[in-house]
Parts: sequence; C-alpha cells; structure tokens
Amino acid sequence: MIRFSVLGCGRIGTMHARNLARHPKARLTSVFDVVTKASDAMAAELGVKAAVSVEEVLADPEVDAVLIATSTDTHVDLITAAARAGKAILCEKPIALDMAKVERCWAEIKGLNATVMIGFNRRFDPSFRAVHDRLNKGEIGKLEQIVITSRDPAPPPISYINVSGGLFRDMTIHDFDLARYFAGDVVEVHAFGGHLVDPAIAAAGDIDAAMVTLRAASGALIHINNSRRCAYGYDQRLEVFGEKGMLLAGNKTATTVQSFSATGTAEGDVVLPFFIERYAEAYANEVAHFVDSISGGTTPLTSFTDGAEALRLADAALESLRSGRAVKIG
Amino acid sequence: MIRFSVLGCGRIGTMHARNLARHPKARLTSVFDVVTKASDAMAAELGVKAAVSVEEVLADPEVDAVLIATSTDTHVDLITAAARAGKAILCEKPIALDMAKVERCWAEIKGLNATVMIGFNRRFDPSFRAVHDRLNKGEIGKLEQIVITSRDPAPPPISYINVSGGLFRDMTIHDFDLARYFAGDVVEVHAFGGHLVDPAIAAAGDIDAAMVTLRAASGALIHINNSRRCAYGYDQRLEVFGEKGMLLAGNKTATTVQSFSATGTAEGDVVLPFFIERYAEAYANEVAHFVDSISGGTTPLTSFTDGAEALRLADAALESLRSGRAVKIG
Amino acid sequence: MIRFSVLGCGRIGTMHARNLARHPKARLTSVFDVVTKASDAMAAELGVKAAVSVEEVLADPEVDAVLIATSTDTHVDLITAAARAGKAILCEKPIALDMAKVERCWAEIKGLNATVMIGFNRRFDPSFRAVHDRLNKGEIGKLEQIVITSRDPAPPPISYINVSGGLFRDMTIHDFDLARYFAGDVVEVHAFGGHLVDPAIAAAGDIDAAMVTLRAASGALIHINNSRRCAYGYDQRLEVFGEKGMLLAGNKTATTVQSFSATGTAEGDVVLPFFIERYAEAYANEVAHFVDSISGGTTPLTSFTDGAEALRLADAALESLRSGRAVKIG
Amino acid sequence: MIRFSVLGCGRIGTMHARNLARHPKARLTSVFDVVTKASDAMAAELGVKAAVSVEEVLADPEVDAVLIATSTDTHVDLITAAARAGKAILCEKPIALDMAKVERCWAEIKGLNATVMIGFNRRFDPSFRAVHDRLNKGEIGKLEQIVITSRDPAPPPISYINVSGGLFRDMTIHDFDLARYFAGDVVEVHAFGGHLVDPAIAAAGDIDAAMVTLRAASGALIHINNSRRCAYGYDQRLEVFGEKGMLLAGNKTATTVQSFSATGTAEGDVVLPFFIERYAEAYANEVAHFVDSISGGTTPLTSFTDGAEALRLADAALESLRSGRAVKIG
Repeated sequence: MIRFSVLGCGRIGTMHARNLARHPKARLTSVFDVVTKASDAMAAELGVKAAVSVEEVLADPEVDAVLIATSTDTHVDLITAAARAGKAILCEKPIALDMAKVERCWAEIKGLNATVMIGFNRRFDPSFRAVHDRLNKGEIGKLEQIVITSRDPAPPPISYINVSGGLFRDMTIHDFDLARYFAGDVVEVHAFGGHLVDPAIAAAGDIDAAMVTLRAASGALIHINNSRRCAYGYDQRLEVFGEKGMLLAGNKTATTVQSFSATGTAEGDVVLPFFIERYAEAYANEVAHFVDSISGGTTPLTSFTDGAEALRLADAALESLRSGRAVKIG
Repeated sequence: MIRFSVLGCGRIGTMHARNLARHPKARLTSVFDVVTKASDAMAAELGVKAAVSVEEVLADPEVDAVLIATSTDTHVDLITAAARAGKAILCEKPIALDMAKVERCWAEIKGLNATVMIGFNRRFDPSFRAVHDRLNKGEIGKLEQIVITSRDPAPPPISYINVSGGLFRDMTIHDFDLARYFAGDVVEVHAFGGHLVDPAIAAAGDIDAAMVTLRAASGALIHINNSRRCAYGYDQRLEVFGEKGMLLAGNKTATTVQSFSATGTAEGDVVLPFFIERYAEAYANEVAHFVDSISGGTTPLTSFTDGAEALRLADAALESLRSGRAVKIG
Repeated sequence: MIRFSVLGCGRIGTMHARNLARHPKARLTSVFDVVTKASDAMAAELGVKAAVSVEEVLADPEVDAVLIATSTDTHVDLITAAARAGKAILCEKPIALDMAKVERCWAEIKGLNATVMIGFNRRFDPSFRAVHDRLNKGEIGKLEQIVITSRDPAPPPISYINVSGGLFRDMTIHDFDLARYFAGDVVEVHAFGGHLVDPAIAAAGDIDAAMVTLRAASGALIHINNSRRCAYGYDQRLEVFGEKGMLLAGNKTATTVQSFSATGTAEGDVVLPFFIERYAEAYANEVAHFVDSISGGTTPLTSFTDGAEALRLADAALESLRSGRAVKIG
Repeated sequence: MIRFSVLGCGRIGTMHARNLARHPKARLTSVFDVVTKASDAMAAELGVKAAVSVEEVLADPEVDAVLIATSTDTHVDLITAAARAGKAILCEKPIALDMAKVERCWAEIKGLNATVMIGFNRRFDPSFRAVHDRLNKGEIGKLEQIVITSRDPAPPPISYINVSGGLFRDMTIHDFDLARYFAGDVVEVHAFGGHLVDPAIAAAGDIDAAMVTLRAASGALIHINNSRRCAYGYDQRLEVFGEKGMLLAGNKTATTVQSFSATGTAEGDVVLPFFIERYAEAYANEVAHFVDSISGGTTPLTSFTDGAEALRLADAALESLRSGRAVKIG
C-alpha cells in the first residue's frame, strides 16, 4: 500500500486525488493547497487530512509519495524538497518553463534515487498505448511518419496564457512527449505559429495555433498541429504510418449514437469536451503505473528526463519560430 | 456484337438504353414506346431508329435482343412474343403480378430456348456481389442470418400504387430475390405490414411498411424491412451473418466528405437519392452480364425462374399478412 | 445513504456489489451466498459482513434494500420475503420462468408498496438512453421501425441451457424489454427459431438463434435477431427509424484504434466481449437509478410490471414458435 | 461541339481520350504519339484518326483544342506551338521542371488569348470540390488549418525518378495546387525530406517522403505529407479546419463492404489503387470543365498561372530542404 499526499487541489489535483482514493494499492493520507478552502473541501470529500503546509506533508512518515498538481512555478522546488524528504514524486507537466531551472533541479536530485514521474497522461491512454504496442510488435513495419492532431476546445483566460510559458511549453509539450514516445530521439524541429483564434493572445505575446514538424534520429518525420480552439470539442488524434500500414487513434464520444436525417448521415456525438473526460482512463492508468513503479523500484515510463526533453523540444520550436530556421537538437 | 432494341422509354428504359449504347459489345438498333414523343427523343439522343411498333422490332433481323422496360401488365405478352421471334430477353421485374400468368408464360416459352433474364439489379451491385462471393468463399463460414434493409425515399403516386400489385410484389420482390441469391430456397414466410407513411396508401388497399421474416431450406433466417419513405434517402443495406463473422454492405453517398461542428461529428452526405443513382454500376453490370449470357449461350444469373420464385415469395407474404400465419412454400 | 445487502455472489452479484460499494449515496452492509466461500471472499474484498442466511439479511435493520442476484428459481420467493420485510428490491431478470408464478408474486406484494426494480440493464446504457431521449424529443418524428441485434459471443454450458427457460425467456427477454422501452405496448408477436449453433442445444430442447417480429399498439414494427454465438464478440446494436430519420446505437470497443494494411482499411477492435464489459456504465447507472428511486419514493424505470410484460412476450414468442402463428397479446 | 486531338497516348492520354470520346459536347478528331503503335491502337479503339505529327494536328482546322499528355520535357514547346496555332490547350502538370522555362513560355503565349488549362485533377474531385464549396459558403467559418495526405501506393521506376524533377515537382505539385485552391496565395514554405522507402531513390538524388508546411497570406497554415509508398493503397485525404468546424474528405474504396471477425471489426476494402481509379470522376469533370471554359471563353479553374505558382512552391520547398530555412515567397 503506497501512502499519498496530493499537493494542489485544483481541477487536476482533485481528479488525481479521487483516482488515488479508489486505487486498491494506494491510500490517500492527506491533501494540501495554499487555498485552505480547497484542501478542506477535498479532505472532507475523501475523508483524509488537510495538511496545513508542504513541510507538514514532507515530514509525515505516513506519506510515501506526493502527487504535485500545484502551479508550474512551484514544481521544481517541490520536486527537490520531496526528493530530499525521500518521497516518490509524480509531478504534473511541465517541470518548469526554463530549461536551466530543470537542469539545476536534476543536478540536485539525480543522486537521491527518488522515483520521479512526470505526468504525461497521453502515454497512458488505452488507444495511444495500443498503437504504440502494435507498432513495436511490428504490425506496420518500420515507422515512417506520425501526424498528431491536438486542438483544445477553447482558449484559456489571458491570465493563464501570461504564465503558461507559451503554447509550445504549455500545450505542445504533450505532443512533443508523444512524438518521443513513438519515434524516440528528435534531432530537428521546425515550427510555424499562427494568430488565428484570439487577438488578445497575440497581444499577450503568444501564438494560438501552430504547425510543428520534427525529424527523429531514426529518420521518421512527425507533424503536430495545434489550435487553442476547436468547435467540435477536444480534438486528440494520432496517425502512425509505417512501411506496412497505418494505425489511427481517434477521438472519444459520450455515446455510440449516429443520426441520419434529411441533411446528413451517420452524425456522431461531439467529442468529449476536454482532458478530464477525454483522458479519464489515461489518468487512472497513470497513477496506477506510478504506484507500480514505486512498488517495483523501477523508473516510470515518463521520467524526469522525458520531462526535460519535451521542454527542450518546446524551446527549440520557439527558437525556430523566431529564427525561421529548423533547429537542430543535441 | 449483340444488337438491341429497348421497349419502353421511361426512366428505366432510358437508363438501360444509354448503358447499352455505351457497351462495347452491344449495339442499340432501335427503341420503342407507345408514347411516340418518348421514343423519338431517345432515338434522337442516341442516334438510333424509333420503331413504330413492337411488331416492327420483333420482325427486325437487326435485333438480337430486346430489353423490356414497359409497364408490368405488358411483360408476359412481350416476353412470349419476343421468345417466339427468337430474341434474347432482358425484362424488368416483376414478370407479372399474377403467378398463374407467370406459369402460363413459362409453359409457352420454356421449349423455345430463349435467353431470358429478369432485371434484378441488386445481384449486380458491386458491394452485394462482393458479399456474396466472400460468403461463398467461406470467409464467414456457414450462413446463419441475413438482415435486408430496403426503404424507398418517398412513396410513389397513388396511381402507381393502384397498379403495382402491392408493396410485396412491387418493392419487396427485390429483397426476396436478394434473399434467394444469398440463402437459396426459402421454405417459410411470415409478414407484418404497416400503415405508417400515408393514409392514402391504406385507402388504396396497400401497406406502406413491412417486416418480413423468411426461413431458408438451409436453416438460415432472413429478415427484410421495408418502408415507402426514408428521410435520409434510399436506404439499401445488407447484413450477412455467419458462424465466423459478418459482412455488411452499406449505402452510397455522392462524396466522402464528413463534417464536424459544435453539434456533431463525422456527418456524411445523405445517401444517393434513388435506384437510378444508387444502382448505376449495378445496372451497367446487369446489361453486361446479359450480353455475356447471350454470347456464351448461358442462363443468366437472374433467370425467368428467379423471377417466378420471387413472386411466389411475395404472394406468400401477402397470404401471411392476411392469415396471420407463417406460410410454407413448396 | 441507502444501506444494501447483495444476495448472490456470482459474476453479476460481484459486479453489483462493487458498484454499490463505490456509489456515494449507497453503503454496502452485507453480502450473502449459499456458497459460503463466495460470500466470504466478497465480504473480505469490500470490507462488509458475510451474512449466513437470507433471514439474517432480511431481519437486519441496517439493510434498507436488497439486490437479488441469485439463481432465477429463487427470485420470486426472495422478492416476496424482502417486500414483506420492508426492503426495497432490485432483482435481476427474469422474475421467474413461469408467468403464473410471476402473477402470484405480484398478488402477494402489490399491496406492500415496496420499491421493486427488475434489472433490465440495457435501458441504462448511455447510448440506448440517448436514442430514447432523442426519439422522445421528436428528433426523428413518429417512431416507425426498430431493429434490435442481440447476439451473445458464445453459448452457455448445456447445464445452464437446461435451467434457463429457453432462449426467449433467458436472452430475448432483454430485447423484449428494450422494445417496450422504445415502442410501448406490444400487441402481436411472431417468432422463427433456429438450430444453427450447437446441436447439443437442440438436443436440450432449445433454439440457439431466432428472428422475432413484434407489432406495437402504436403501429410500430420491431425486429429482434438473436444468436447464441457471435465470432466478433457481443453484438448489441439498435436501429430506431422514424418519419424524419434514424438513430443507431452501435457496439463498444476497447480502443478507438483503426488499422490499415495491404488487405483492408479502418479495421477496428473486436467489440467488448460480454455484458459485464459492454454494460459496465449501464450497470452503474442502474444501481444509481435504484438508489434515486428509493430516495425519491418513485417507481423505478424498470418495474415489476416491466419484468412481467417482458416474460409475457417471451411466452408469446414461444407459442408462436410452436403454432406457426403470430400471437396476439392482451 | 469542341473538336479535340490528344497528344500522347500513354496511360493518362488514353484515359483522357476515352473521356473526351464519351463527352456529349466534345468530339475526338485525332490522337498522336511518337510511338506510332500507341497512337494507332488508340485511334482504332476510338474510331479516330492517328495523326503522324504534331504539325499535322496543329494545322488541322478540325481541331479546336489539344490535350497534351506527352512527357514533361515537351510541354512548353507544345503549349507554345498550340497557342500560336490558335488551339485551346489542356496540358498535364507540370508545365515544366524549370521556372525560367515556364516564365518564358508565358511571355510567349500570354498575348495570344489561348484558353490554357493545367491538369490539376484534384480540384475536380467531387469530394474535394464539395469541401471547397462548403468552406466558401461559410460552413466552418474562417479557414485556419489544412492537412493534406498524399501517398502513392508504390514508387515509380528509377528511370522515371531521374526525369521527374524530384518529389516536390512531380508529386507534391498536386498538393501545392490543392493548398492554393483552398487557402489562396502562399507566402512561406518549409520542408523536411526523408529517405524512407527505397535507397535507390536516395542514390538518384531524390527524396521519397516529405513533410511540408506552408503559411498562406491569409494566415492559414497548411501541412502536406507525402510518401512514395503506401501499403494500403493510394492515400489521398484532406482535412480543412476552420473556426466553426472541420471538413474531411477521405479515400475511396471499390465497395462499401465491411467485415467483422474474431480479429477485428468494420474492416473496409483497401483504397482504390492509384490515380486512374481514384480520380476517375475528377478526370471526367476536368475535361468537362475545359470544354465549358472553351465554349464560354472563360479562364479555366486551373490556369497557366496556377501551374506556374505550384512549381514556384515546389522550388521553394526544394530550397528549404537544402537551406534548412523556411523560404519566403514573393
């Protein structure tokens, strides 16, 4: 039984806390949030302790692992402190918005042998996972091309944009990780950005749409398209093309219903609205994998290094956007 | 080169005449219609002779074969006369609305060795044909169940209903033939009819919807559903279920376009409107098969007997409707 | 908080017990099974009491409601005893295999004002429910036809066939209930049965495939097809056709993955294997509805009467099978 | 009636000649090929004259228009000569492999008022056309992103690669034109190329896979992916994403059959093998549009300028491949 504390009781922290509370090999010991009302509510709902400080959590011998779902600017300090306190760590992406900070963090913790996992939920989606496994079993031969479609239903508030690190570090970072999951190391990045959705985002210095292309060390080519708005819901598709065929993973809908009318046929539901619904199974699988990694003493599938490398690609995409050149990695 | 005359220049006759005019091994010699204006127009369009009488056509040594697309009440006389004149015959379904008449016709012509084909177009649809061939190659093992969906886009005028012989002889007859194509001899028929579409059809003594179930000699069970109205177009689907799997053949649309919006996803076009469009390839294949049958001296896939047997099932369905019993055949 | 005891710790009872244990407004108090090992295991897993007798359960003031998942032959006695003990009752279908027994049970309990729900899980499937709600909101106008496909992946053992009451009472009963859910009262039933899957089932006096057709009081026509075997999994589809369009509800698969190869395109996963997986959401919704019905003092959506009426249709289908006639109801 | 001569009796010329022979407002007068056997065969099949030289064709007053389907290196000279001879011209893409040559050709002919059309068949595909029309009617609001998938079933022989001008000028040129059809002027191009299919293609100095990204003057972003090999057939898909939704156009298959088995569900046919089959309707529409343009004296939808601009994008992609930079246009 792995005993957990969840740090951060926002939307994602709440979801993780509920998943941990339900997991047969995990026990939720406490939750913490700087907003006391939030941690109190979650503690009450799940019948656990509301810790009053991070220090209390990290000093608690009844806590084996922390799940960090606080704001991005706190991640590095919390990871470092938790690693020093001997806790296993599952931290939401991104580790930080600044590569130097990520590297300093790694320098601090790498000798501590902490189990550290970064929350790239998509690797735990059953459909993406199935594509990965079937590719690796050789079903479509050598990997040649990947197309990742990743469009949010609606843009976040500008206040969020301002602290997000920009579209590549905030949103595309998931797609960069997915690209690495399928194609391994990436050696070259090109990006076009767009101001297509909301002029306020441009005014905040960010882009709201992008088309990024990657070249993997293996020679495989990867395309990612992003938009901060998508009329039909949260568009999360994957196309993996190889010498012997192709595997697609599509969107999820609430029902299998199709309608036929005088104006069209086989119309399905809109896709599930956003990540909490779309990746519900993935999030449950993610914490289960973390629990297994701690129990087994193994490095999680989405390691600290994966978090760092995805940020490196985000930074490279940003540099490409600015320079107009494809940027080489490593 | 097989030389043809088309009798009947309505919608179906026109379509057949154009297909014959385009076929490399067929030559259209003449067309005939009791409405002179219709035959003149078709003759002008296709650059052929407008015959002034059936007698002229049947006496013409330049005519090897006739395609009969006149009204149903003329079919038997035309088949008989054409067979006597030594012409090959492709006659639109149904042969007649009265089984006794069909049997007398057969008694007249069976000794004449005429090539006689009844126009059951659906057997020549590439998708239905592919299902048939894959079934017969054993892809889904032993045939167990068939579901035939056959819904017209809109009811015909009451004037047509009045001379149609009723839904089973006019519309379901195609489905009966399709059932026989896949499952062979049918031994038992049950039918429910409905008055769901237009009270004027009920007033004319006919039904406008039906659910028919058949039992084949092989043990296979077949369901047919019919409606005289279908909001989303001409619904023509086939499900063939066997011990090792299932084969479906679906509707056809004008394009492959799918639309995604705030109200739904993957909406396709409405299905092709009616038989001329839906079965365009089937009709072309049908005349090609007839040309090959004449050339090869073989019995066409949809023989006079098939026409008679489909009518027998229609009559049995009508009897079931009246008696409330499943009706045994043969 | 509604306090529950689950009677019967087989596959379905286990699944229900886990759903109840997870439901925020339910508390599982105890479980019971004549096989002590089964109830002990479930009690241990869920941290509840293993009752040693039905009497203990019914006498327990900590039990507000019982979920009956024992063998069919015990249902009537347990319903009656539980109703007398003032418990709310959710009983798995069928109530009994004998209509007279069902009617005697009703005579016993109807004055007791117990909340009684019969476990017709399909009404709680999100897709079937969505079709129902959209139909009732008028999306496809007046209901005209329904096609229900219901095929089990593989036949049960002959020992089960022998006590099942036959295909109509055991398997089609779900489809009869679904037909009533969509089309209301049924007035006429015709059935063809088949011996297509396993000769041992025929030897046991049962059929293993069927095509049933119903006529509703509204005039709507309904077709049900059943098979005790389906190579591609548990086939559970619904087609609802109306004057303005059609709604389909399809099968569920484990992933959204589609594969494209030299031999075919867009191949999806096999469908979910059987009812526990296919109707996982439906079962959770079903117990939630029961909890709400008890809390609100309302009659559940799937009442004792619904259980009786579905059995009446099963009996009528059996009579039709024997007599070769469509059987009128009521 | 527009009278035609077809120059070049290879696979594409043959297909065009047959379409012209069937078109009600076109008449095929003659065909020509430097390989006399080819032109004789086609002339015999279609019952037209086999011209012995281009000069004979261009001097023939019975020829209003020429369809140029000869090898690429002859296009410019034939266009120029035909324009001088007062013929309307439908020339297969590309105009030439060298932009300077294209510009000189234009300088020669622009004053001659010839109707000149370049054979970008995809604009005439019913599905792509429907997407275009629905986009322009505002169905999905402002255009934001396009994803074009364009993969050939198998690479051509190296002898063809050697004279093809490279993947961008030979294959992607269609996609560049499609991008311009939907998004208008393109202002920036980036390309990654790959050697993924056949080392002999790399040895010949060409790439066999590519991912190209374009930025349109409107701000829209466009992604194109190409491969010289595709296991499941000729993959030709289009995704058009706008502020209010998305339109997809998919591949075409020979039938609508789907198969369901113990290993998968809803498997469709492989896609149509290559351009002759896939774009059969598009080619027929293309010549029909050309006939209408001549009759109406209007500029064809795919003008000489479109041919030049698509080549300009191909050249920019090649420059991007070499320089590692996104290349600005104009």
